Amino acid sequence: MIEEKGILFILSGPSGVGKGTVRKEIFNRKNNLKYSISMTTRKMRPGEKDGVDYFFKTKEEFQELIRQNKLLEYAKYVDNYYGTPREYVEDMLAAGHDVLLEIEVQGALQVKKNFPDGVFIFLLPPSLEELKNRIVRRGTETDSLVRNRLAEAKKEIRMMDNYDYAVLNDDIDRAVENVRTIIASEHLKRERVEKQYKKILEVELP
Amino acid sequence: MIEEKGILFILSGPSGVGKGTVRKEIFNRKNNLKYSISMTTRKMRPGEKDGVDYFFKTKEEFQELIRQNKLLEYAKYVDNYYGTPREYVEDMLAAGHDVLLEIEVQGALQVKKNFPDGVFIFLLPPSLEELKNRIVRRGTETDSLVRNRLAEAKKEIRMMDNYDYAVLNDDIDRAVENVRTIIASEHLKRERVEKQYKKILEVELP
Repeated sequence: MIEEKGILFILSGPSGVGKGTVRKEIFNRKNNLKYSISMTTRKMRPGEKDGVDYFFKTKEEFQELIRQNKLLEYAKYVDNYYGTPREYVEDMLAAGHDVLLEIEVQGALQVKKNFPDGVFIFLLPPSLEELKNRIVRRGTETDSLVRNRLAEAKKEIRMMDNYDYAVLNDDIDRAVENVRTIIASEHLKRERVEKQYKKILEVELP
Repeated sequence: MIEEKGILFILSGPSGVGKGTVRKEIFNRKNNLKYSISMTTRKMRPGEKDGVDYFFKTKEEFQELIRQNKLLEYAKYVDNYYGTPREYVEDMLAAGHDVLLEIEVQGALQVKKNFPDGVFIFLLPPSLEELKNRIVRRGTETDSLVRNRLAEAKKEIRMMDNYDYAVLNDDIDRAVENVRTIIASEHLKRERVEKQYKKILEVELP
């Protein structure tokens, strides 16, 4: 039974929880996933490729896409825009690929509004203590920044109500397996299977 | 994170689809499942044990349980009642076990009314042709009975709208793995994880 359309999975959670690591590990394993490529107005760096690392756009182009509602989410950091182009995601889904989007909580909530059919997965730290350790271990933050990040994380954890699934990232392999389990089970949802199956039945039952 | 309550999974589908085989294979593998033991008024057979093969009851006891709405579903075949006692299922769930109930489509629809929190899985034959072959291969049915069973199966397949998941039984190992995937992913639903997780947060955030 070939399915017609892929599913958009959104992997999200507070910063420091390990979204990037889990995402990389998922792509290291056998999968039918495409990574959602972001769009940005920042300058291309040496070694980067347009359409691979990012879709690189001018500020004017980006603002025009915002006006046309062609971004699933976007944000401005310092002087540059970053966002998720809707068209790339929809092309991949239409071609039968699942798409994985790894994103901060604020961005995920925007995607939820613009693409409610997505499957939203919240990655949880084993505890706030452990989350603090992970942020400190990165070594790039001052004490007051760590406190801010932690306060922000608490707020974000309270936003998990908007998600479909929650995966505890206490063990990277287990977290990866759990995300893969969610991806597999979403393909077994009755609504999805039914559409395909009824076509078989129609052929057999004139 | 210890979960407080188990989940009731209902494995169902048209007769001949292989529900029993899939169920047995699931119990042959590592699991945290309890099999839902049925209740019956038929005589105990040599080798059978009360509370293991069935809960054996008199007709009067069974009818009293029906009146008290203590059965998740029941039916009468020839002169005997068969049903699923609610109490056994709820005791197992309360103890943190998942419960698997393998049942015909009509019974599953009754369970759905009495226990809407269950997770309903519909097992599909690869095709009606293959379903016919399986019924014929059993060798216990006459031609007209096979036709009846097939007509019934078509009706039952149209009832899959009431289910949460649909699993194609074209390959027994794949079907078993898919049911196991569904069981695992249901434990990752945000509502379930959230309840437990917020307890952790409360401890950490006075």
